[in-house]
Amino acid sequence: MKHIISVLVENKSGVLAKVAGLFSRRGFNIDSLAVGTTDDMNISRITLVVNAENHSIEQVTKQLYKLINIIKIQELDPGNIVERELVLIKVSADSRTRPEILEIVNIFRANIVDVAKKSLMIEITGNNRKVDALEELLKPFGILELVRTGKIACTRGSKY
Amino acid sequence: MKHIISVLVENKSGVLAKVAGLFSRRGFNIDSLAVGTTDDMNISRITLVVNAENHSIEQVTKQLYKLINIIKIQELDPGNIVERELVLIKVSADSRTRPEILEIVNIFRANIVDVAKKSLMIEITGNNRKVDALEELLKPFGILELVRTGKIACTRGSKY
Repeated sequence: MKHIISVLVENKSGVLAKVAGLFSRRGFNIDSLAVGTTDDMNISRITLVVNAENHSIEQVTKQLYKLINIIKIQELDPGNIVERELVLIKVSADSRTRPEILEIVNIFRANIVDVAKKSLMIEITGNNRKVDALEELLKPFGILELVRTGKIACTRGSKY
Repeated sequence: MKHIISVLVENKSGVLAKVAGLFSRRGFNIDSLAVGTTDDMNISRITLVVNAENHSIEQVTKQLYKLINIIKIQELDPGNIVERELVLIKVSADSRTRPEILEIVNIFRANIVDVAKKSLMIEITGNNRKVDALEELLKPFGILELVRTGKIACTRGSKY
Protein backbone atom coordinates (compact mmCIF):
# COMPACT_ATOMS: atom_id res chain seq x y z
CA MET A 1 0.00 0.00 0.00
CA LYS A 2 1.21 3.50 -0.85
CA HIS A 3 1.78 5.92 1.99
CA ILE A 4 2.41 9.64 1.78
CA ILE A 5 4.53 10.81 4.67
CA SER A 6 5.32 14.40 5.47
CA VAL A 7 8.34 15.07 7.70
CA LEU A 8 9.25 18.49 9.07
CA VAL A 9 12.98 18.71 9.79
CA GLU A 10 15.55 21.28 10.76
CA ASN A 11 17.27 22.56 7.65
CA LYS A 12 20.72 21.15 8.49
CA SER A 13 23.35 19.19 6.60
CA GLY A 14 22.87 15.45 6.94
CA VAL A 15 19.23 15.31 8.02
CA LEU A 16 17.98 14.15 4.64
CA ALA A 17 20.66 11.45 4.47
CA LYS A 18 19.58 10.19 7.90
CA VAL A 19 15.91 10.01 6.92
CA ALA A 20 16.63 8.33 3.59
CA GLY A 21 19.08 5.97 5.32
CA LEU A 22 16.49 4.87 7.85
CA PHE A 23 14.05 3.89 5.10
CA SER A 24 16.74 2.14 3.07
CA ARG A 25 18.07 0.10 6.01
CA ARG A 26 14.56 -1.27 6.45
CA GLY A 27 14.46 -2.22 2.78
CA PHE A 28 11.80 0.29 1.76
CA ASN A 29 12.08 1.62 -1.72
CA ILE A 30 11.14 5.29 -1.83
CA ASP A 31 8.80 5.88 -4.79
CA SER A 32 9.36 9.59 -4.72
CA LEU A 33 10.83 12.18 -2.40
CA ALA A 34 10.66 15.95 -2.53
CA VAL A 35 12.38 18.28 -0.12
CA GLY A 36 12.35 22.04 0.06
CA THR A 37 12.28 24.80 2.64
CA THR A 38 8.99 25.88 4.23
CA ASP A 39 7.98 29.49 4.95
CA ASP A 40 10.56 29.29 7.75
CA MET A 41 14.03 29.06 6.14
CA ASN A 42 15.31 26.99 9.10
CA ILE A 43 12.74 24.27 8.55
CA SER A 44 12.44 21.95 5.56
CA ARG A 45 9.66 19.60 4.65
CA ILE A 46 10.34 16.15 3.19
CA THR A 47 7.40 14.57 1.37
CA LEU A 48 7.92 10.84 0.82
CA VAL A 49 5.86 8.27 -1.04
CA VAL A 50 6.65 4.70 0.01
CA ASN A 51 5.07 1.36 -0.70
CA ALA A 52 4.80 -0.64 2.53
CA GLU A 53 2.62 -2.44 5.03
CA ASN A 54 0.86 -0.34 7.66
CA HIS A 55 2.75 -1.85 10.58
CA SER A 56 6.15 -1.23 8.98
CA ILE A 57 5.24 2.42 8.49
CA GLU A 58 4.36 2.71 12.18
CA GLN A 59 7.76 1.27 13.13
CA VAL A 60 9.63 3.60 10.81
CA THR A 61 7.72 6.58 12.19
CA LYS A 62 8.73 5.66 15.72
CA GLN A 63 12.35 5.38 14.67
CA LEU A 64 12.24 8.67 12.79
CA TYR A 65 11.14 10.44 15.96
CA LYS A 66 14.31 9.19 17.65
CA LEU A 67 16.48 11.09 15.15
CA ILE A 68 17.50 14.54 16.24
CA ASN A 69 16.53 17.40 13.93
CA ILE A 70 13.11 15.83 13.28
CA ILE A 71 10.30 18.18 14.23
CA LYS A 72 7.11 16.45 13.12
CA ILE A 73 6.05 13.37 11.16
CA GLN A 74 2.62 12.98 9.67
CA GLU A 75 1.09 10.31 7.51
CA LEU A 76 -1.31 12.08 5.20
CA ASP A 77 -4.83 10.73 4.64
CA PRO A 78 -5.22 10.38 0.84
CA GLY A 79 -8.91 11.27 1.16
CA ASN A 80 -8.25 14.65 2.72
CA ILE A 81 -5.36 16.16 0.81
CA VAL A 82 -4.53 18.00 -2.36
CA GLU A 83 -1.66 16.16 -4.02
CA ARG A 84 0.34 17.51 -6.90
CA GLU A 85 3.39 16.73 -8.92
CA LEU A 86 5.23 18.77 -11.54
CA VAL A 87 6.71 17.08 -14.59
CA LEU A 88 8.82 18.35 -17.48
CA ILE A 89 8.64 16.23 -20.62
CA LYS A 90 10.82 16.78 -23.67
CA VAL A 91 9.31 15.11 -26.70
CA SER A 92 10.48 14.74 -30.30
CA ALA A 93 8.50 17.01 -32.57
CA ASP A 94 8.84 18.33 -36.11
CA SER A 95 6.59 20.44 -38.32
CA ARG A 96 4.55 17.35 -39.16
CA THR A 97 3.85 16.07 -35.63
CA ARG A 98 3.80 19.41 -33.77
CA PRO A 99 0.08 20.21 -34.35
CA GLU A 100 -1.02 16.85 -32.96
CA ILE A 101 1.19 17.23 -29.88
CA LEU A 102 -0.11 20.76 -29.27
CA GLU A 103 -3.65 19.44 -29.38
CA ILE A 104 -2.87 16.83 -26.70
CA VAL A 105 -1.09 19.47 -24.59
CA ASN A 106 -4.16 21.73 -24.74
CA ILE A 107 -6.56 18.97 -23.74
CA PHE A 108 -4.43 18.29 -20.65
CA ARG A 109 -4.12 22.01 -19.91
CA ALA A 110 -0.37 21.52 -19.89
CA ASN A 111 2.05 24.24 -21.06
CA ILE A 112 4.75 24.40 -23.71
CA VAL A 113 7.85 25.87 -22.04
CA ASP A 114 10.44 25.42 -24.81
CA VAL A 115 10.32 24.91 -28.56
CA ALA A 116 13.22 23.73 -30.71
CA LYS A 117 13.47 22.56 -34.30
CA LYS A 118 13.12 18.91 -33.36
CA SER A 119 11.56 18.98 -29.92
CA LEU A 120 9.02 20.50 -27.57
CA MET A 121 9.26 20.78 -23.79
CA ILE A 122 6.01 20.40 -21.90
CA GLU A 123 5.24 21.31 -18.29
CA ILE A 124 2.35 19.55 -16.57
CA THR A 125 1.03 19.78 -13.04
CA GLY A 126 -1.41 17.31 -11.53
CA ASN A 127 -1.86 14.01 -9.82
CA ASN A 128 -0.15 10.79 -10.97
CA ARG A 129 -3.03 9.65 -13.12
CA LYS A 130 -3.09 12.81 -15.21
CA VAL A 131 0.68 12.81 -15.67
CA ASP A 132 0.76 9.11 -16.57
CA ALA A 133 -2.04 9.57 -19.11
CA LEU A 134 -0.18 12.40 -20.85
CA GLU A 135 3.05 10.40 -20.85
CA GLU A 136 1.24 7.46 -22.46
CA LEU A 137 -0.13 9.67 -25.26
CA LEU A 138 3.25 11.29 -25.94
CA LYS A 139 5.24 8.04 -26.00
CA PRO A 140 4.62 7.28 -29.70
CA PHE A 141 6.25 10.61 -30.66
CA GLY A 142 9.43 9.74 -28.74
CA ILE A 143 10.10 10.99 -25.22
CA LEU A 144 13.62 12.43 -25.02
CA GLU A 145 13.62 13.33 -21.35
CA LEU A 146 11.16 13.18 -18.47
CA VAL A 147 11.81 14.80 -15.08
CA ARG A 148 9.40 14.48 -12.14
CA THR A 149 9.51 16.48 -8.93
CA GLY A 150 7.92 13.72 -6.89
CA LYS A 151 4.63 14.23 -5.15
CA ILE A 152 3.87 16.95 -2.60
CA ALA A 153 0.64 17.19 -0.63
CA CYS A 154 -1.21 19.55 1.66
CA THR A 155 -4.22 18.78 3.89
CA ARG A 156 -7.52 20.36 2.89
CA GLY A 157 -9.26 22.96 5.07
CA SER A 158 -7.82 25.38 7.58
CA LYS A 159 -6.33 22.79 9.90
CA TYR A 160 -2.56 22.68 10.07
CA MET B 1 27.63 29.33 -5.71
CA LYS B 2 24.47 27.35 -6.45
CA HIS B 3 24.77 24.24 -8.57
CA ILE B 4 21.98 22.20 -10.11
CA ILE B 5 22.99 18.57 -10.42
CA SER B 6 21.01 15.92 -12.20
CA VAL B 7 21.78 12.30 -11.32
CA LEU B 8 20.31 9.31 -13.14
CA VAL B 9 20.22 6.26 -10.89
CA GLU B 10 18.84 2.76 -10.88
CA ASN B 11 15.48 2.74 -9.09
CA LYS B 12 16.62 0.57 -6.17
CA SER B 13 16.30 0.74 -2.41
CA GLY B 14 19.17 2.61 -0.80
CA VAL B 15 20.48 4.56 -3.78
CA LEU B 16 19.00 7.86 -2.63
CA ALA B 17 20.40 7.37 0.88
CA LYS B 18 23.87 6.77 -0.60
CA VAL B 19 23.74 9.91 -2.73
CA ALA B 20 22.41 12.08 0.10
CA GLY B 21 24.96 10.51 2.48
CA LEU B 22 27.86 11.38 0.20
CA PHE B 23 26.87 15.05 0.12
CA SER B 24 26.27 15.16 3.87
CA ARG B 25 29.63 13.55 4.76
CA ARG B 26 31.31 16.35 2.83
CA GLY B 27 29.33 18.91 4.79
CA PHE B 28 27.21 20.14 1.90
CA ASN B 29 23.75 21.28 2.78
CA ILE B 30 21.29 20.28 0.10
CA ASP B 31 19.05 23.27 -0.71
CA SER B 32 16.49 21.11 -2.43
CA LEU B 33 16.19 17.61 -3.78
CA ALA B 34 13.54 16.05 -5.96
CA VAL B 35 13.46 12.43 -7.02
CA GLY B 36 11.01 10.61 -9.22
CA THR B 37 11.00 7.92 -11.88
CA THR B 38 11.80 8.78 -15.50
CA ASP B 39 9.98 7.40 -18.54
CA ASP B 40 11.80 4.14 -17.73
CA MET B 41 10.37 2.78 -14.44
CA ASN B 42 13.75 1.21 -13.59
CA ILE B 43 15.55 4.53 -13.68
CA SER B 44 15.01 7.49 -11.36
CA ARG B 45 16.32 11.00 -11.67
CA ILE B 46 17.54 12.95 -8.65
CA THR B 47 17.69 16.73 -9.11
CA LEU B 48 19.78 18.41 -6.42
CA VAL B 49 20.47 22.05 -5.71
CA VAL B 50 23.57 22.60 -3.56
CA ASN B 51 25.55 25.63 -2.54
CA ALA B 52 29.28 24.93 -2.93
CA GLU B 53 32.58 25.86 -4.52
CA ASN B 54 33.25 24.60 -8.04
CA HIS B 55 36.15 22.37 -7.04
CA SER B 56 34.15 20.66 -4.28
CA ILE B 57 31.41 19.85 -6.78
CA GLU B 58 33.97 18.24 -9.07
CA GLN B 59 35.21 16.07 -6.23
CA VAL B 60 31.72 14.99 -5.23
CA THR B 61 30.90 14.15 -8.84
CA LYS B 62 33.95 11.89 -9.05
CA GLN B 63 32.93 10.14 -5.85
CA LEU B 64 29.34 9.75 -7.01
CA TYR B 65 30.54 7.89 -10.09
CA LYS B 66 32.21 5.34 -7.82
CA LEU B 67 28.85 4.39 -6.30
CA ILE B 68 27.14 1.49 -7.95
CA ASN B 69 23.64 2.13 -9.30
CA ILE B 70 24.69 5.54 -10.61
CA ILE B 71 24.10 5.84 -14.34
CA LYS B 72 24.89 9.45 -15.21
CA ILE B 73 25.73 12.71 -13.44
CA GLN B 74 25.34 16.07 -15.08
CA GLU B 75 25.82 19.56 -13.79
CA LEU B 76 23.23 21.71 -15.55
CA ASP B 77 24.19 25.04 -17.09
CA PRO B 78 21.76 27.62 -15.61
CA GLY B 79 21.85 29.55 -18.89
CA ASN B 80 20.56 26.66 -20.97
CA ILE B 81 17.79 25.03 -18.95
CA VAL B 82 14.15 25.39 -18.10
CA GLU B 83 13.87 25.21 -14.31
CA ARG B 84 10.63 24.83 -12.45
CA GLU B 85 9.33 24.24 -8.97
CA LEU B 86 5.81 23.51 -7.74
CA VAL B 87 4.60 24.99 -4.47
CA LEU B 88 1.39 24.58 -2.48
CA ILE B 89 0.61 27.46 -0.12
CA LYS B 90 -2.24 27.42 2.38
CA VAL B 91 -3.07 30.93 3.48
CA SER B 92 -5.55 32.33 6.02
CA ALA B 93 -8.50 33.90 4.25
CA ASP B 94 -11.99 35.04 5.20
CA SER B 95 -14.73 36.86 3.32
CA ARG B 96 -12.98 40.16 3.94
CA THR B 97 -9.48 39.23 2.71
CA ARG B 98 -10.44 36.69 0.02
CA PRO B 99 -10.91 39.19 -2.86
CA GLU B 100 -7.48 40.72 -2.35
CA ILE B 101 -5.81 37.30 -2.23
CA LEU B 102 -7.62 36.19 -5.40
CA GLU B 103 -6.36 39.29 -7.16
CA ILE B 104 -2.75 38.47 -6.24
CA VAL B 105 -3.25 34.84 -7.31
CA ASN B 106 -4.53 35.97 -10.72
CA ILE B 107 -1.62 38.33 -11.31
CA PHE B 108 0.80 35.45 -10.67
CA ARG B 109 -1.26 33.09 -12.83
CA ALA B 110 -1.37 30.75 -9.86
CA ASN B 111 -4.37 28.48 -9.17
CA ILE B 112 -6.73 28.06 -6.24
CA VAL B 113 -6.91 24.31 -5.52
CA ASP B 114 -8.93 24.31 -2.27
CA VAL B 115 -11.25 26.72 -0.52
CA ALA B 116 -12.35 26.51 3.12
CA LYS B 117 -14.15 28.92 5.41
CA LYS B 118 -10.94 30.33 6.83
CA SER B 119 -8.31 29.41 4.25
CA LEU B 120 -7.35 29.11 0.60
CA MET B 121 -4.87 26.69 -0.94
CA ILE B 122 -2.84 28.03 -3.84
CA GLU B 123 -0.77 26.12 -6.39
CA ILE B 124 2.03 27.95 -8.18
CA THR B 125 4.58 26.76 -10.71
CA GLY B 126 7.65 28.72 -11.68
CA ASN B 127 11.21 29.61 -10.85
CA ASN B 128 12.37 30.60 -7.37
CA ARG B 129 11.96 34.29 -7.90
CA LYS B 130 8.30 34.04 -8.86
CA VAL B 131 7.50 31.72 -5.95
CA ASP B 132 9.38 33.89 -3.45
CA ALA B 133 7.58 37.02 -4.67
CA LEU B 134 4.16 35.40 -4.22
CA GLU B 135 5.13 34.13 -0.78
CA GLU B 136 6.21 37.64 0.23
CA LEU B 137 2.86 39.11 -0.84
CA LEU B 138 0.84 36.43 0.95
CA LYS B 139 2.78 36.61 4.23
CA PRO B 140 0.72 39.47 5.73
CA PHE B 141 -2.45 37.34 5.44
CA GLY B 142 -0.88 34.49 7.42
CA ILE B 143 0.71 31.48 5.74
CA LEU B 144 -0.57 28.28 7.38
CA GLU B 145 1.46 25.80 5.37
CA LEU B 146 3.94 25.93 2.51
CA VAL B 147 5.18 22.84 0.67
CA ARG B 148 7.80 22.98 -2.09
CA THR B 149 8.74 20.16 -4.46
CA GLY B 150 12.28 21.41 -4.88
CA LYS B 151 13.58 22.44 -8.26
CA ILE B 152 13.67 20.27 -11.37
CA ALA B 153 15.31 21.26 -14.62
CA CYS B 154 15.56 20.15 -18.22
CA THR B 155 18.06 21.31 -20.87
CA ARG B 156 16.67 23.40 -23.71
CA GLY B 157 16.68 22.17 -27.31
CA SER B 158 16.66 18.65 -28.70
CA LYS B 159 19.91 17.52 -27.10
CA TYR B 160 19.59 14.89 -24.40
